[in-house]
Amino acid sequence: MKKKVTLKQIAKELDVSISTVSKSLRNSLEIGEETRLKVRAFAKFYHYKPNNIALSLKNRKTKTIGIIIPEIVHYFFSTVINGIEHVANEKGYSVIICLSDDSFDKEVLNMELLANGSIDGFIMSLSKETQFKGDFHHITEVISQGMPVVMFDRVTNDILCDKVIINDELAAYEAVQNLIDKGRKKIALVTTVDYVSVGKFRTDGYIKALRDNGLPFDENLIIKIENVENCEITIAQLLENKAFDAVFAVNELFAVTIIKIAHKMGIKVPEDLAVIAFTDGIISKYSTPTITTVSQNGLEMGSVAAKILIERLEAEEEGIEIEEKDEVYKTVVIETHLIERESTL
Amino acid sequence: MKKKVTLKQIAKELDVSISTVSKSLRNSLEIGEETRLKVRAFAKFYHYKPNNIALSLKNRKTKTIGIIIPEIVHYFFSTVINGIEHVANEKGYSVIICLSDDSFDKEVLNMELLANGSIDGFIMSLSKETQFKGDFHHITEVISQGMPVVMFDRVTNDILCDKVIINDELAAYEAVQNLIDKGRKKIALVTTVDYVSVGKFRTDGYIKALRDNGLPFDENLIIKIENVENCEITIAQLLENKAFDAVFAVNELFAVTIIKIAHKMGIKVPEDLAVIAFTDGIISKYSTPTITTVSQNGLEMGSVAAKILIERLEAEEEGIEIEEKDEVYKTVVIETHLIERESTL
Repeated sequence: MKKKVTLKQIAKELDVSISTVSKSLRNSLEIGEETRLKVRAFAKFYHYKPNNIALSLKNRKTKTIGIIIPEIVHYFFSTVINGIEHVANEKGYSVIICLSDDSFDKEVLNMELLANGSIDGFIMSLSKETQFKGDFHHITEVISQGMPVVMFDRVTNDILCDKVIINDELAAYEAVQNLIDKGRKKIALVTTVDYVSVGKFRTDGYIKALRDNGLPFDENLIIKIENVENCEITIAQLLENKAFDAVFAVNELFAVTIIKIAHKMGIKVPEDLAVIAFTDGIISKYSTPTITTVSQNGLEMGSVAAKILIERLEAEEEGIEIEEKDEVYKTVVIETHLIERESTL
Repeated sequence: MKKKVTLKQIAKELDVSISTVSKSLRNSLEIGEETRLKVRAFAKFYHYKPNNIALSLKNRKTKTIGIIIPEIVHYFFSTVINGIEHVANEKGYSVIICLSDDSFDKEVLNMELLANGSIDGFIMSLSKETQFKGDFHHITEVISQGMPVVMFDRVTNDILCDKVIINDELAAYEAVQNLIDKGRKKIALVTTVDYVSVGKFRTDGYIKALRDNGLPFDENLIIKIENVENCEITIAQLLENKAFDAVFAVNELFAVTIIKIAHKMGIKVPEDLAVIAFTDGIISKYSTPTITTVSQNGLEMGSVAAKILIERLEAEEEGIEIEEKDEVYKTVVIETHLIERESTL
């Protein structure tokens, strides 16, 4: 039985990165000639078949959508998938999901895997590592071969394609404004240490809301949590000093952790400490007190992404030529809204 | 561009079920001759290509594992997927996921989709509807064509294949025994209204623990919840009458709901009411009080399932012939354990 050699095996054999192999096979000038030739010779020797989208597109429609998401143990992404599935099934499409596990290499490998004739188009959210590296050649490649890609949530301006996002800055702004309207003056932002675009936008919204309301901006009140298990001491100290009377957390895990710490210290939520979290999750609904959230609308995001992709696929099928392609890509901004619960007054 | 006709389209066109089309194409005698011939003629006319696993297996290995799970907004299944991904990636395999959405038709269609050359083997958990119908022809078909299937959690005795399960009866027994050891005498079982095998096993374990300890079995204390939003009144009435002093819930959503209702009624957890839930979920970890759980060990379940599948795939590859196939399938029982938290004393 003949084994299929994969991108990963070539990379391992030649001790270069997957990205280098992938770019060399496309004859990218970013890669030095020697490496490029070596990779190509090796691939040829082992009869490596690069993904041949153009060919597969000509031959058949799979009526299948490929999803690539960073992680699965994350309520938000699950709701997006449900939104995609719902619309896709209604229109007679199947859905295949791959996880990048927030790894650039896995994202590249999974796109290669799916683009190889299994699907008609992608719906994807970038891995953290891809956003950090800023290397999007695998996506450009797929698009340039005529396979449509719709990005959601974690998107990049460096790729021209359809996008579905929320206005993270505005949503954060509105949450902080809500806290200010309720008389809170010392508002902490509890956020992640990472390179994901949405984190930055939420911080911008937080700062803007403070500024527009003439409140001082105190850098110490931006708490960056690397590991939710180890953050207790930092937060307890700030609470001890009554450094803040309200918290805007970028996810519900941070929010519920803070509420637990406050509870242990005898600080009352919402009386002494108001809490709002960014999330579509279920912890907020079932914690005590229940937590006020900014809904990310994952379901809506998924369903809009699927509609856009399917429209594009079916326009292609009917031979509708889109002349100035760059012009017609759309970015849909999904509305967010505040779900008020017990953690704010 | 030529469209590929799908099982679903044939079913719709001829106004028969997907299962009927699928069985007719395999010339199953379960289907009447007229229907069978009609389906086959139609499929031929439209050049329908049935999944041709034998052929694809001969030609190449994809180094890809296909997962089919009932739903994704479910922490347990997410942890199983993480377990599978971890082992698969380590061994150089990619993973593709499809959701059955607890629908028999979607399960059949997704198996058809993936078996068609995209993957080397399946890891799957049955949809509720499949368990209810008891129709497993799509799985038998795949296995008989030489593609290995490993089932986990929701399995069936009607299919001979490798299985990874927990001992749901024993786990339930131990949880109830734990409550009895702590002096509880009136223990309620809060479970689902469905046809999933694991639910029945858990009920058996609950009843057995009561019997072994000489406690009376009261049918009114088996509370079957159809819709978590509408169960409040039933539970409140039972609590009002002090009908039970402990609860064993088959999932954490039921557990946290009961705790919330008790809290509203001034009933103290764990003093007046002890609660244990079956789950790997995160609500239990963050609710107030935190909830004692029977861990389902999803991560371990996924990682064992992946190991078994990959061993089987690689044995095949090395041409190891397994003579008495039926004999060598294994059922691995993953150990569960109690994570004691605040909801029990």
